[in-house]
Amino acid sequence: MENRTIGVALLGLGTVGFGTYKVLKTQREEMKYKIGAQLELRWILVRNKEKAMSKIDEPELVTDRFEDVLNDKKVEIVIELVGGTTFAGDYIEAALRAGKHVVTANKDLIASDHGRLMDLAKENGCDLMFEAAVAGAIPVITPLKQSLAANHLTEVMGIVNGTTNFILTRMEQEGMDFGEALSLATELGYAEADPTADVEGLDAARKVAIMASIAFNSRVSVEDVWTEGITKITADDIRYAQEMGCCIKLIGMAHSDGASIEAYVAPMLIPKRHPLAAVNDSYNAVFVRGDAVKDAMFQGRGAGEMPTASAVVGDVFDVARNIVHGCNARISCTCYRHLPVAKMEDVYSRYFLRVEVDDRIGVLAELADVFARHLVSVDQIIQKQRHISYRTAGKNIVTDEKVAFAGIGAEQELPGAEIVVITDVVREGDFRKAVQCIRDKKGTRRICSMIRVYSSDTQDR
Amino acid sequence: MENRTIGVALLGLGTVGFGTYKVLKTQREEMKYKIGAQLELRWILVRNKEKAMSKIDEPELVTDRFEDVLNDKKVEIVIELVGGTTFAGDYIEAALRAGKHVVTANKDLIASDHGRLMDLAKENGCDLMFEAAVAGAIPVITPLKQSLAANHLTEVMGIVNGTTNFILTRMEQEGMDFGEALSLATELGYAEADPTADVEGLDAARKVAIMASIAFNSRVSVEDVWTEGITKITADDIRYAQEMGCCIKLIGMAHSDGASIEAYVAPMLIPKRHPLAAVNDSYNAVFVRGDAVKDAMFQGRGAGEMPTASAVVGDVFDVARNIVHGCNARISCTCYRHLPVAKMEDVYSRYFLRVEVDDRIGVLAELADVFARHLVSVDQIIQKQRHISYRTAGKNIVTDEKVAFAGIGAEQELPGAEIVVITDVVREGDFRKAVQCIRDKKGTRRICSMIRVYSSDTQDR
Repeated sequence: MENRTIGVALLGLGTVGFGTYKVLKTQREEMKYKIGAQLELRWILVRNKEKAMSKIDEPELVTDRFEDVLNDKKVEIVIELVGGTTFAGDYIEAALRAGKHVVTANKDLIASDHGRLMDLAKENGCDLMFEAAVAGAIPVITPLKQSLAANHLTEVMGIVNGTTNFILTRMEQEGMDFGEALSLATELGYAEADPTADVEGLDAARKVAIMASIAFNSRVSVEDVWTEGITKITADDIRYAQEMGCCIKLIGMAHSDGASIEAYVAPMLIPKRHPLAAVNDSYNAVFVRGDAVKDAMFQGRGAGEMPTASAVVGDVFDVARNIVHGCNARISCTCYRHLPVAKMEDVYSRYFLRVEVDDRIGVLAELADVFARHLVSVDQIIQKQRHISYRTAGKNIVTDEKVAFAGIGAEQELPGAEIVVITDVVREGDFRKAVQCIRDKKGTRRICSMIRVYSSDTQDR
Repeated sequence: MENRTIGVALLGLGTVGFGTYKVLKTQREEMKYKIGAQLELRWILVRNKEKAMSKIDEPELVTDRFEDVLNDKKVEIVIELVGGTTFAGDYIEAALRAGKHVVTANKDLIASDHGRLMDLAKENGCDLMFEAAVAGAIPVITPLKQSLAANHLTEVMGIVNGTTNFILTRMEQEGMDFGEALSLATELGYAEADPTADVEGLDAARKVAIMASIAFNSRVSVEDVWTEGITKITADDIRYAQEMGCCIKLIGMAHSDGASIEAYVAPMLIPKRHPLAAVNDSYNAVFVRGDAVKDAMFQGRGAGEMPTASAVVGDVFDVARNIVHGCNARISCTCYRHLPVAKMEDVYSRYFLRVEVDDRIGVLAELADVFARHLVSVDQIIQKQRHISYRTAGKNIVTDEKVAFAGIGAEQELPGAEIVVITDVVREGDFRKAVQCIRDKKGTRRICSMIRVYSSDTQDR
């Protein structure tokens, strides 16, 4: 048995930081058998020393000076859990330049600066690991880099944001609208005070950038990921999805045919029989396709103190094994290709479109004609008769729905009809043009929703 | 970029062997970027040279002499896909003693001889990897040894045999009985000519032994795994399960409270809301619980040419990386504890019991009394009235059902009733004694079925 002691510093003692502190403690007796070394926590870097000192058993480890960590030669592994990009990037860079290995859960930083940091790690013979940055506790990065490495992967997609999955699940299971479900998520601590990054899809986009880079061996930055959130999804959309045997999930999609990469985040209709449809509440899941593995899915807790710490300390153990065996940077950056990221206009999908029109003869045929002219092949077009008559006066006029009708003047008393269109797999640019043309048509009251429909055919085309 | 070439030998060119051959080819251009080395296939060992030579592009690689492999100093990695225990064990042992690393998909061998072979690998500074031995393409071994290493795992369980999952899915979705579903599985190539190892649970037991050893860091051999197959499951059982909001799955269970290990294979009622309930057809899935990760599940293809080859070549790549970085045996045997495996009598579960009795007043109370006397706490006891009258003459008398009534003489014309009992979490030994007592009671016609009921409470007790 190896008796080596490896010094560790923890940057940050927030939720995940404190979880990591706890996991390092619970593993103290056994780690030497698992990794052949004993980890020694030497520093905990925080902004507010007093608060941190009251939380832990070894207040003498707490510091607010990063220099204490950097200048301590015995610190071989730095665990960055400060989050954000302000200080964290500088800390990671300084640690790597000082030859210290880094484990981080920082998806912001990895998504925007993955390539540069991996190169820096390699130059310094260091490990830089970030399993916790994608889908919390769920092993995703390691399987992609190791167990599934013998594949040409074509798709890595999934539910990688727990907040939005919680909201969509409440909307589906309890008929809540978006606002109600968001309030509940905030109340229960699933959503942050400012939920923008979650509900607008930015958080998921970061994870897509990371997964796509690793799956397709080509750097994808968060700026490359086209992003649409769930704020426009209504209870009506959920109901229509259910009628079609689907649910709506916010999907982070990374797809490649080997020549280019599609990377986007968008709400999608997922057939109930797809394994992702059963992933509810705040759970995350990542679905993978490749030429050999065919399809596989990993699901679990995408966030939280202990689950995220499970992934962080798993990485720390791996770095420690590499130190013991003298093989750090054993798996470094695997982005050896340079594939372009497709423009969203050039991405192919099926679409669900819901549009409210004046209810009159010939309207279906007119719509069908618009699609045909734009090369958009239609799978189904269904008229849902709904006799809607609108009051022209009174406060109701100011609601969003009414504002949408402001242009149609005298026709607002006409009965309206709702038309649902499901397209075949079509080019997004063509579809958008067709929708614009429909929007501009006399007799179109409003475009209620446009949602992509997941189908494995889409992805196998 | 490293220019090292690493010699590889493939033992066996059956389904998985040929898949591995194909994956090595499709990865030929890219592997140097992924692993920093080029793999060179130097030998393919087979019994029937001519047949093998006709299947591949390089007939000169084919041999029927293991010595060719063993004596070739350039062969650093041996991929054992011969299967079985007759030759495979000798090959693996000889390869390790010669300092060659081994990748295998051989669950028989690993389940029965895991400890000795891992020790042998370590003594010789070699890697011995076997991701493909459990759940085919699904990364299970690597996540357990790496990403989830910072957990005290309490449970690793799942659907680890595709044949039986296919059969149970057909029984559930199409109302087939066991025999029909087995015939279909055989016809479609999901079941082997002799399906015993699958349907009696032995194949699953091997995987449980391997998973338990790794998850709980203590050696569990296949002989330690109590095993019950699915041959007794009837269409009636499936129907009752559905009424209870459950399905029936053949579950490989490994559970530990840290003091001992429970390891068994048995059909279980799984609540429909549990993620394993949605894993159908020939898919496999492994569900994991631990103190930090909470719960996670991995699902995918448990068998097949390319999926299994995905796992095999993933391991080969990992061994190759270790060779390049000089760190083989980086993760060797992790069984540093010596936990006893609990006797099945001492395992706690919930049970579903279905028993056919004479329909008369007081029978429910009598049954309840038997359970109470045996310390078996009952959750529900339901009488399902079924007026069954039996003919005493004619050929029907020889069916199994009738034989069971041979002892009840004149009462066979009485109407019968079916009673369904769901217990709380109880000790198996107590439950079995209670059932024996019920079986011996006058008025009991037959014990129709006894099936364990999965509940997370059971496992958290």
